[in-house]
Amino acid sequence: MLTTDLYASSVQHSLDLAGIFVFAISGALLAVRKNFDVFGIAVLAEATALGGGVFRDLVIGAVPPAAFTDLGYLLMPLVATACVFFLHPHVERINGAVNVFDAAGLGLFCVAGTTKAHDYGLGLTQSAVLGLVTAAGGGVVRDVLANEVPSLLRWDRDLYAVPAIVGSTMAALLIQFEALSGVTSAAAAVTAFVLRLLAMRYGWRAPRAWHRRSSTAEDL
Amino acid sequence: MLTTDLYASSVQHSLDLAGIFVFAISGALLAVRKNFDVFGIAVLAEATALGGGVFRDLVIGAVPPAAFTDLGYLLMPLVATACVFFLHPHVERINGAVNVFDAAGLGLFCVAGTTKAHDYGLGLTQSAVLGLVTAAGGGVVRDVLANEVPSLLRWDRDLYAVPAIVGSTMAALLIQFEALSGVTSAAAAVTAFVLRLLAMRYGWRAPRAWHRRSSTAEDL
Amino acid sequence: MLTTDLYASSVQHSLDLAGIFVFAISGALLAVRKNFDVFGIAVLAEATALGGGVFRDLVIGAVPPAAFTDLGYLLMPLVATACVFFLHPHVERINGAVNVFDAAGLGLFCVAGTTKAHDYGLGLTQSAVLGLVTAAGGGVVRDVLANEVPSLLRWDRDLYAVPAIVGSTMAALLIQFEALSGVTSAAAAVTAFVLRLLAMRYGWRAPRAWHRRSSTAEDL
Repeated sequence: MLTTDLYASSVQHSLDLAGIFVFAISGALLAVRKNFDVFGIAVLAEATALGGGVFRDLVIGAVPPAAFTDLGYLLMPLVATACVFFLHPHVERINGAVNVFDAAGLGLFCVAGTTKAHDYGLGLTQSAVLGLVTAAGGGVVRDVLANEVPSLLRWDRDLYAVPAIVGSTMAALLIQFEALSGVTSAAAAVTAFVLRLLAMRYGWRAPRAWHRRSSTAEDL
Repeated sequence: MLTTDLYASSVQHSLDLAGIFVFAISGALLAVRKNFDVFGIAVLAEATALGGGVFRDLVIGAVPPAAFTDLGYLLMPLVATACVFFLHPHVERINGAVNVFDAAGLGLFCVAGTTKAHDYGLGLTQSAVLGLVTAAGGGVVRDVLANEVPSLLRWDRDLYAVPAIVGSTMAALLIQFEALSGVTSAAAAVTAFVLRLLAMRYGWRAPRAWHRRSSTAEDL
Repeated sequence: MLTTDLYASSVQHSLDLAGIFVFAISGALLAVRKNFDVFGIAVLAEATALGGGVFRDLVIGAVPPAAFTDLGYLLMPLVATACVFFLHPHVERINGAVNVFDAAGLGLFCVAGTTKAHDYGLGLTQSAVLGLVTAAGGGVVRDVLANEVPSLLRWDRDLYAVPAIVGSTMAALLIQFEALSGVTSAAAAVTAFVLRLLAMRYGWRAPRAWHRRSSTAEDL
């Protein structure tokens, strides 16, 4: 039995759509800030929401990717585009709320990505890596398309990779010990979600290389 | 019967090569403007001409992609590179002509991409999206490699996505109503082509988000 | 018999890991220069080391890519990350040595990429192109993620594509004439390696488009 069967599929599908929606919002908001037109907003919303999952599906051989088989996945970012297009001053104002939803998407996608990769026969470590890619890849695609340094990589942004790594690793360990269920996978997703919220609340950051300043100040 | 069989294949192949050539010219010209060397010009020409189609083929599972099975697809951008390398002041001078050819490539690729995706079993909406990706994806790859904001996304460029969306949608509707033939698919391609020419002629642009200026001026 | 069987597989695997390690070092060093945090360093190391091979494997249909089946491929960039994180002033100081290793990786990967693509049924020309992509693709991914113009494309960098093209072409010709063996493929890799060293030693560069300056000075 596939591990994804452990989820009530309709619940899982709704959670996927919710995750896609909030990631699309983050893409659309960046597009507005970059002064893109309505089609640029839609492209960035789609790429942000679906980029991580499409890459995962290409790697594991799940072709065509879910984004191109389930119409809802493709349409949800257009709903997000419409919301941002007409309401973006209000959406900006609730930016905190958007960040909370984005953290929820991060938690959902790192667990869902890990279990799907394992369903397709990848090892546990590789599955956890693809969980991270699923959760964080869309944001990287978003920033590359917007011609910015991916916020995932920057030292001056709150921790983003660590919560996803923790969630993915928990999911992989649950699979390893045959303890993956709706409840335990929800616990992994919630752990990643809460860690991300705490990182934003307390400004947790990751260290840069030792002695960095002395030797590279001239490069900046 | 596959819908692509509706085309006389030799005619279709010639049109594909023509589309690849003009897209490659647009990549090579940007490479010259960015001061790249001859290999940089060739890489950008290849990526611009083949990027959209390779992504489509990976998504639909047509592996290896056509760009790696048909030698002409791989060589045509090198011909474009040679033309631009030796003749680029003249090519720049006929930039208007290049834009017309690029519009023709847009028309051809959005229809060909839609029909190929449908041949591989994708739904009509997804096929139309992949038609758009085939037509516009190479330009996005070009701009990302050249470290510029993709012109597809920018509000201060004439409409590019809309003509491709119209052409892709027409192709999808023709498939839906079993009316796809050489003549009707040519009509879809010509419609996209003419719309793109009109967009350039009259400077048609897409709107940006409402009230954008008030809330985001400080971000620019 | 597959051409890769010609290698003693354990030797080949060690060479692959060595190539991945040196490419990862180059990614990690750029990440430090760009002021990324430790996770940004790890992501850039992974992307640089594995990007070219993952793209090749997706194109030839070797799914999941080797980077996601062989755990060593995934872990080696983390070792490189740790080295650069703790020792980077020393690693910077031996930058010359890193460049020599990078040249060795270039030689190994262009030959290995060509033979693997041919094993999966691609034509000789396409296989040579994928050998180039395997060797140079990771560096392009690295520079795109770091929001820089890929050094592969820039005229003011020493030749990088030409050594890889020579090595890939030699490997393709060896396959063509059924002369591929451990010795001859090593000769192709060494040729690419030595050419790259010479290009760095003597500052070999590729020409830009003719009459470039006159017509495009205003764009710079």
